[in-house]
Amino acid sequence: MATAVAAPAEAVQQDYNSLCEKLREVSALGGISGLLGWDEQVMMPDGAAASRAAQQAVLAGVIYDKQTDAALGELLSKLDGPKESLGQYEAAVVREALREYQRTTAVPKRIAKRKAELSSEAFQVWVKAREASDFGAFAGILQEWVDLVKEQSAAIDPARSAYDVSLDEYEKGMTSARLDEIFVQVREGLVPLLKEIKGRGKAPDASFLSGSFDTGRQAKLCETIAKEIGFDLTRGRLDVSVHPFTGGAHPSDVRMTTRFKADDLTEGLTGAIHETGHALYEQGRNLDYDGLPVNQAMSMGIHESQSLFWERMVALSEPFSHYLSAHLKTAFPELKHELYPALNVVRDPFKFRVEADELSYPLHIILWYELEKGLLDGSVAVSDLPRLWNEKMQSYLGTTPKDDAQGCLQDVHWGMGAFGYFPTYSLGAMYACQIYQEAKKQLPGLEDEIRAGQFGQLRGWLNEKIHKVGSLYPDGDELMRAVTGAPLDPAIFLQYLRDKYSVIYQL
Amino acid sequence: MATAVAAPAEAVQQDYNSLCEKLREVSALGGISGLLGWDEQVMMPDGAAASRAAQQAVLAGVIYDKQTDAALGELLSKLDGPKESLGQYEAAVVREALREYQRTTAVPKRIAKRKAELSSEAFQVWVKAREASDFGAFAGILQEWVDLVKEQSAAIDPARSAYDVSLDEYEKGMTSARLDEIFVQVREGLVPLLKEIKGRGKAPDASFLSGSFDTGRQAKLCETIAKEIGFDLTRGRLDVSVHPFTGGAHPSDVRMTTRFKADDLTEGLTGAIHETGHALYEQGRNLDYDGLPVNQAMSMGIHESQSLFWERMVALSEPFSHYLSAHLKTAFPELKHELYPALNVVRDPFKFRVEADELSYPLHIILWYELEKGLLDGSVAVSDLPRLWNEKMQSYLGTTPKDDAQGCLQDVHWGMGAFGYFPTYSLGAMYACQIYQEAKKQLPGLEDEIRAGQFGQLRGWLNEKIHKVGSLYPDGDELMRAVTGAPLDPAIFLQYLRDKYSVIYQL
Repeated sequence: MATAVAAPAEAVQQDYNSLCEKLREVSALGGISGLLGWDEQVMMPDGAAASRAAQQAVLAGVIYDKQTDAALGELLSKLDGPKESLGQYEAAVVREALREYQRTTAVPKRIAKRKAELSSEAFQVWVKAREASDFGAFAGILQEWVDLVKEQSAAIDPARSAYDVSLDEYEKGMTSARLDEIFVQVREGLVPLLKEIKGRGKAPDASFLSGSFDTGRQAKLCETIAKEIGFDLTRGRLDVSVHPFTGGAHPSDVRMTTRFKADDLTEGLTGAIHETGHALYEQGRNLDYDGLPVNQAMSMGIHESQSLFWERMVALSEPFSHYLSAHLKTAFPELKHELYPALNVVRDPFKFRVEADELSYPLHIILWYELEKGLLDGSVAVSDLPRLWNEKMQSYLGTTPKDDAQGCLQDVHWGMGAFGYFPTYSLGAMYACQIYQEAKKQLPGLEDEIRAGQFGQLRGWLNEKIHKVGSLYPDGDELMRAVTGAPLDPAIFLQYLRDKYSVIYQL
Repeated sequence: MATAVAAPAEAVQQDYNSLCEKLREVSALGGISGLLGWDEQVMMPDGAAASRAAQQAVLAGVIYDKQTDAALGELLSKLDGPKESLGQYEAAVVREALREYQRTTAVPKRIAKRKAELSSEAFQVWVKAREASDFGAFAGILQEWVDLVKEQSAAIDPARSAYDVSLDEYEKGMTSARLDEIFVQVREGLVPLLKEIKGRGKAPDASFLSGSFDTGRQAKLCETIAKEIGFDLTRGRLDVSVHPFTGGAHPSDVRMTTRFKADDLTEGLTGAIHETGHALYEQGRNLDYDGLPVNQAMSMGIHESQSLFWERMVALSEPFSHYLSAHLKTAFPELKHELYPALNVVRDPFKFRVEADELSYPLHIILWYELEKGLLDGSVAVSDLPRLWNEKMQSYLGTTPKDDAQGCLQDVHWGMGAFGYFPTYSLGAMYACQIYQEAKKQLPGLEDEIRAGQFGQLRGWLNEKIHKVGSLYPDGDELMRAVTGAPLDPAIFLQYLRDKYSVIYQL
């Protein structure tokens, strides 16, 4: 009597162990690549640019070979299927590894090569096109990216839309159907709220945050705050770079950077707290699953939720302003003003995404999202972009750019082939808001602790609920369900904004 | 009529190009490993030690796989033999690559693995043994190293002595027969000279070099000098580390470090100039052969010759002392003494190799050399080491250590399996001396230039003769012949020391 016999538990375990060994190698090499990237931006002498690019290319080749190793594919085939003998985390390791393997092996080498070339060509082309405000000079590259991303998406999964396949790279499990649902709601809530604020709101005074602030003292202040929030300097470094970022080689080796402007206190401060949020997520990973895909960041949106949690939900809150005030008075005794409303001033006019505040930011994102989806589904032509961009800008944010440099050339994401990246910024903001509301429910006295500069309980809670969980869940909604009991709900975000700004702007 | 047909020139060129591609990959990965090593000592947070070790191990495995790739071996076999169609540098690429391939593939994995384990075990064992001055606690590890190195040498080349095969790792082409010849001559010249200096020499005053010197000002001074000698900060960095070293990722990315002591001016200063010499050698490589073995450092001895050239031949010279004096007076106005004799004081008693001056240093080296050769040829038993070490110390340097911690446990080289490393320090000093005498002949006005702080002509000469030449020649004697017209001649070194110290010590 012959029946299909499941592989015995020991065999599964053996295959699983072999799989982990291979995955840990890829992870270690990825960590090395991360360190090289950090070094390049923070330490490397200018003259080493060419040799470093060559080193990164060789390393990328080694990683690619290991990621597409046929033996890895065989192990994954054997482990794909019912995994009763594997625990929840182990099953997620297999799921994530399989997803990664399929995405990587599906893309022909020719496309991968052209993507790498195009990325390095595009940046300079974009810089020049923006300088000259000449969209036409960038249009050719953009068209090639659109075609290439469509081709790549078809190779990965011809059954899904090109946009959904590309989006999945940045926000696992997210779809444009779900984004449409979320973003329509957000747009319909925010456009009138912004108009109301602009029309009858009373803007608080924030002029004292511009002026002249010693950057050394700013850096010291921000290091103190980063450490008090919980950045662990025995497992990370804090340096200065032209563009602040958080990178590094491993959860035990997280490299975060900041930058400070002498004439603007807010940017350095909120930037440092933002990066601290990213860094806590990285340092907080569960080392029981070190080097395995279940231990990776969940998605770009969840990563951003951790930075925005600290930057916006905590640092822009009323309780935090008391803690911050005390520190600021030591560093800059001349500052005796009320911080909370000033830090939350709405930055009208709403021209640039990177300068936007939490109220207008999502409308920028929705604009980019609608256009990039249109580019990939064919409903938007590259040549129509400048006009459509300007129309949407006027409609959502009530402003029209003076030229394309300040319009559809203001961001470079598409020039890097990153279609589906933009939405993650606002998903992050909404995740962060929903998580914070839940934290307030679960942690009584949270706001008093924040006021007193005690962040340990909150950090521990985030660590348990989000940092250590890594990529255990298949998508952000599942993680939100586990943390807050419900999938992402933009109504929570909209309610938070209306409540907050009604008070600050005396609506 | 069949005759053996030589491969046509195009086929050779094609194989050569394929070879270069593979070699450049290995070189790029080696550069990455170099950067990780620098980062570990200069930047890395303590908590990252374990993850970094794992990353380095994975990277070492990748490099090993590429170094022992059968396809590389096949290309080398095809290219080994008459190479009329290859130029001089191209032929040296094949020669060096073949040598490296044979050495790497000859060693069984078991030995390579045990070496790596033993290296990481040994350091802690040695530290503890030295703390307790307990040679017995270290003897077991040392015996295992002796056996392992003998086994490894037999695997690489059973026709040569174990010592010669091991020595070849550090000083390509050197043999113990040649070292015996050189070192006997040096010993017989130096032992009486040292006795003479100790007996009737008049020691100059150097007390003013000890005291209290702001380390920040020392660092600034040394950076200025390093830059004026020619260290290029657009293709390198200068940082501080516990143990000064020169490393990095590429000739365009050389990372040198220094350290300064508040109570001792000489150590930081000579250390910085020493590392500058290493750094110039690294930065000066010929980028036409970038990433190929012909472009690697010739040997440990030649590398050391470049650091000692600047540290001793230039910086300890009378002309340089005028240049240095001018800088020192700016940094430390209280220093108005005569520098030249003070910097050249003989550091009696001669207890520690790392503290030794140029006169007593070679005798330390000869002691270690004689013993390590004896350990590998069986004429010295591990258990006899402490006694033999002390006897030689008394005979060559007229002093006996108070215990084994200050005796045969003072250096860790053997604990790392480095048999044949010691001689390179003194070979470096002798190469440097011979090269300097030749530079004086070929560059008229050299000493006036040094006095004026003009190092450009000398640096350019070294660059042409040595830095750019890399590993073109098969051994140090050949390089010396090309640069100075004769193989290494210890008589030049001895004459230099006698002339110099007769004046300083008024013999």
